[in-house]
Amino acid sequence: MHNIHYAGRACRKMRNLKIFCSFSGANYHGFQRQPELPTVQGEIELAFNKVIGAEVSIAGCSRTDAGVHACRFCFSTYIKNAIPCENLTRALNGRLPPDIVILSCEEADKSFNARFSAKSKEYIYLINNKRQRDVFMQSYHYPYDLNIELLRKTAQLFIGRHDFAAFCRSEGLKEVSSTVREIYSFNVKENDGFAEFIVRGNAFLYNMVRIMAGTLIYVNEGKRTAGDILEAFKTGGREKAGKTLPPYGLYLNDVFY
Amino acid sequence: MHNIHYAGRACRKMRNLKIFCSFSGANYHGFQRQPELPTVQGEIELAFNKVIGAEVSIAGCSRTDAGVHACRFCFSTYIKNAIPCENLTRALNGRLPPDIVILSCEEADKSFNARFSAKSKEYIYLINNKRQRDVFMQSYHYPYDLNIELLRKTAQLFIGRHDFAAFCRSEGLKEVSSTVREIYSFNVKENDGFAEFIVRGNAFLYNMVRIMAGTLIYVNEGKRTAGDILEAFKTGGREKAGKTLPPYGLYLNDVFY
Repeated sequence: MHNIHYAGRACRKMRNLKIFCSFSGANYHGFQRQPELPTVQGEIELAFNKVIGAEVSIAGCSRTDAGVHACRFCFSTYIKNAIPCENLTRALNGRLPPDIVILSCEEADKSFNARFSAKSKEYIYLINNKRQRDVFMQSYHYPYDLNIELLRKTAQLFIGRHDFAAFCRSEGLKEVSSTVREIYSFNVKENDGFAEFIVRGNAFLYNMVRIMAGTLIYVNEGKRTAGDILEAFKTGGREKAGKTLPPYGLYLNDVFY
Repeated sequence: MHNIHYAGRACRKMRNLKIFCSFSGANYHGFQRQPELPTVQGEIELAFNKVIGAEVSIAGCSRTDAGVHACRFCFSTYIKNAIPCENLTRALNGRLPPDIVILSCEEADKSFNARFSAKSKEYIYLINNKRQRDVFMQSYHYPYDLNIELLRKTAQLFIGRHDFAAFCRSEGLKEVSSTVREIYSFNVKENDGFAEFIVRGNAFLYNMVRIMAGTLIYVNEGKRTAGDILEAFKTGGREKAGKTLPPYGLYLNDVFY
């Protein structure tokens, strides 16, 4: 191995690494490590162990639910090994399964933490609007008419600082001190039989993107209105929002620092 | 089941069906049925059996190698069952694995055969030109510079009627009476870090697209020239062509009748 001489070679000081990866979540119970279950974190830590011969614990930029994907997901980790970033990337990729890949690796300040340093995140909820399901792209199959203009207009309501308690799975409410979040942009794109809900914000509550996406689908079907969304912000009533769309349509598109 | 009353209901005459499907080939040993191995044909015939309660044998528009994908693949089959096409599509999709889907089904003349009636086929060879592998799209990872203009110019040489013996895997040569094929178009597209070789022709020899794609890659690397391709047409010498690229980058894009 071209990098074997780095394995076990301790460096003088602890390094903090900022690493971006991409994964298809179909085969994993989310990012976060769980005993006895296949997780993205578990696979990456195992690859680290093989490459540098030491136990490593990584901090992901967010938890993701089982089945959720990531185009660019950031994690940070402290290591005491001199292996250059470029070689570490290549070596990890050689040991990771085909549905997880390291995109880049760089040195970070020792204060950097992938989760707490994140300024904003962008998610895409992908909807297959074709008649039949798509065998190549994991997506939510919705073979009915989509009123894209209505969806675009309605999506604008989410932009800004709001109390998103109504757009949070109940288990998530007790974990946070505040349910106020800020959405910076919410675009609706159509592309080759697919629709994309592209939403960027400072942070997101548990299942928040999947519930906002489901609310748009309910608006499309006339089951919810713009007024219901405004009411949901005011009252926090989950019943004013729409259903939670399934995880396999959700992609963490990017994390910004 | 909404269509259960059709199962086993014989119709007066034999019907010939023309069916388009799509599949991700990663988990299959090609389209064509093989004993003891998972194949696309095997899965589809099994689904037919469950839906109409009778053994059905389907004829695919082409054999595809293990790992090759299809955006639109046609097969035909005779059945003696009155189930309407729409219901058959829905019922088959309910029983097929997630990586195979029936796109459409229609009645065809009794002379129609998915393989022998085909007028032309279009393949795409997908190359991931990004630095790291892609976890979402099956493709050939080539993280080096691509001279797209050179590839476009060179691809034009394949257009027209030529003896493609040099672009055929040797095992395939003994199966055909002629190695002359006609290529109608050969485009090279760039899109978001991917390159696509899009080739349409009347018919293709064994591994022909993968060898043409590999020849273009060799031209990109200066290992072959336009002159080598012209020489390959003249002499049939396999060594004048390039390497065979792997199956997982190949997509049968469409079949035309």
